[in-house]
Amino acid sequence: MLERFKVPDKDKIFISETEIYELTKRVLMASGVSEKGADNTASVLIGNDMRGVESHGISNGLRLYLNRYDSGENNPTPNIKIVKESPTTAKIDGDGALGTETGPIAMEMAIEKAKKYGMGSVSVFNTGHLAGCGYYPLQAVNEDMIGHCFTGSPAKQTLPTWGSEPILGTNPVAWAAPADEMPPFLFDIATSQVAGNKIELTRRTGAKLLPSWIADEDGEPIMEEIETPDKGQYHLLPFGGTRENGSHKGFGLGFVGEMMTNILSGAGPAIFNDHQGSDFFVAYSIDAFTDVGKFKTDMDALLRRIIESKPATGYERVVYAGYLENEEYVKRSKDGIPYHIEVVEWFEDYCKKNKIDCDLR
Amino acid sequence: MLERFKVPDKDKIFISETEIYELTKRVLMASGVSEKGADNTASVLIGNDMRGVESHGISNGLRLYLNRYDSGENNPTPNIKIVKESPTTAKIDGDGALGTETGPIAMEMAIEKAKKYGMGSVSVFNTGHLAGCGYYPLQAVNEDMIGHCFTGSPAKQTLPTWGSEPILGTNPVAWAAPADEMPPFLFDIATSQVAGNKIELTRRTGAKLLPSWIADEDGEPIMEEIETPDKGQYHLLPFGGTRENGSHKGFGLGFVGEMMTNILSGAGPAIFNDHQGSDFFVAYSIDAFTDVGKFKTDMDALLRRIIESKPATGYERVVYAGYLENEEYVKRSKDGIPYHIEVVEWFEDYCKKNKIDCDLR
Repeated sequence: MLERFKVPDKDKIFISETEIYELTKRVLMASGVSEKGADNTASVLIGNDMRGVESHGISNGLRLYLNRYDSGENNPTPNIKIVKESPTTAKIDGDGALGTETGPIAMEMAIEKAKKYGMGSVSVFNTGHLAGCGYYPLQAVNEDMIGHCFTGSPAKQTLPTWGSEPILGTNPVAWAAPADEMPPFLFDIATSQVAGNKIELTRRTGAKLLPSWIADEDGEPIMEEIETPDKGQYHLLPFGGTRENGSHKGFGLGFVGEMMTNILSGAGPAIFNDHQGSDFFVAYSIDAFTDVGKFKTDMDALLRRIIESKPATGYERVVYAGYLENEEYVKRSKDGIPYHIEVVEWFEDYCKKNKIDCDLR
Repeated sequence: MLERFKVPDKDKIFISETEIYELTKRVLMASGVSEKGADNTASVLIGNDMRGVESHGISNGLRLYLNRYDSGENNPTPNIKIVKESPTTAKIDGDGALGTETGPIAMEMAIEKAKKYGMGSVSVFNTGHLAGCGYYPLQAVNEDMIGHCFTGSPAKQTLPTWGSEPILGTNPVAWAAPADEMPPFLFDIATSQVAGNKIELTRRTGAKLLPSWIADEDGEPIMEEIETPDKGQYHLLPFGGTRENGSHKGFGLGFVGEMMTNILSGAGPAIFNDHQGSDFFVAYSIDAFTDVGKFKTDMDALLRRIIESKPATGYERVVYAGYLENEEYVKRSKDGIPYHIEVVEWFEDYCKKNKIDCDLR
């Protein structure tokens, strides 16, 4: 994540992974969520925080989710059901659960199928926010597999290339694979130029938006650095920004996300349906194709070659997807997660009102 | 494809699909390629030309392939073998065949597996140039499936974000899916900012390169419009161009391509191995997840919504991946394919020297 999205030093309070995990679980269970459901959601959000992906962690996520339970938009006590299944595929009705509750279950199913048949893929519909796609492929990595995930986010956010009407969501996608000694590869992106959540984070961090990150209301990319406009006063662009700079690649991959989630699950394109979202999880068994040890050694060699390569003028080093996130993971395992004081105060208030034990400092 | 890559009007000679297909097949068979192998390669290259993807068609491809047969880099009479197989996966040794010969075979296998088991994926190693990824997923579309393909192209072409040493190839990737009345969705891109072949095409068309399309030899993105530098005088950038504009997304997806092809096939990362390339083909049965009719109607609705959406100021219309290519397909089915006169002259010379029937005008 670019520096401009991070919490300023003066506003940081460090909290250990265990402490925030236990508290988050208690908070979710106080809303009626099962222990397993609370474990899933807390693990996903805090897993993101541990990798420094604060845009998809506790700070933005938890209170949003509690509001959605309160408003009935998400179901804290879902009856999660398999509605279609083959040896290698399955479709799950999430019954309005958060994506963070159904996601770990669905990826686990894909992994089990891949163990038996070489590959597995699971489609989930009628489910809520997934908190990015990064957490789930890492479940596959832990089993020496390649993991892959799409999520269809709420529609009408991102413009098509050359368009002025936002049609698709930010539709994130991720792949991850294990290495041997090197940190795993984890590629986890929004197909918009900037994730919607990151735009919202700038309101808390005070960072400005860079040229060609968003478009004005008529679809014109804004080509100077600006303060974040109010919601509804801007549109997201597909990654690339302009056609000349490849925004058709962002738009196309965003469409693939829509197709592999909302359309393939049968829920229908998000723009026409006031439904919850859909997700798609894939696990590939490395062993079905090649020797797992060789795969991991080859990954190490290429990843190390990238890390050791000469940077361009003005840059200190070259990294690969997942490398900096792993550095954050190591640092945060030792020091705790730096939350913005406003987030800690929110926990304290919320817990006081709801009579939940809370001792964060 | 951007206008700047197209053949200028004054240099066009129109040739029908059938005519160029038959001639290409004769030319390949004169080099010892089997009828099936020649059919595959001709179908792929001319399929690309029919969709207007001239960068991956006959013009750049055929003489390159003949040179590679001549030099022994590719094998015109390969013994293509399945070396590992499960119900849903397979690995094929291409024995030095062109990717355009093995690709249609591998995708066909993935489709057959998906028919039985919901999904299929096939890895191919020890194979040559695939001519982009677009043709193969369309094979799956013809069977009412979703098709997906990666290819690992020759290494040391594209810089990592922040890097000055080119490490990966341009590693293209594609997905395609059927619609009902609308042209199929076909998303087919290089993970570099511009495909290497397109840079080469500019030498023939005289077009200039736009800002942030390539980097200088030290890894610095060139931010003005320039003539195409000589080979070896520039590096490709991952799509996005600069980190601020999302080049880590291009670099990450390019790495996924390397991992799903060269590493998963066991061939090893291209940068360390003077081997032929690897490819990866996936077919998903729509029917395993949802009703095929509903999928296609939903695709129609979303694709039509995009086509009918209001363009941004200065643009005439909004399109989706595969739409313009389908327009070219329709036009070229009627008028023939507009080849550059230089390409036609090459055919005439080559056929004369090799005593092959040739009557293109």
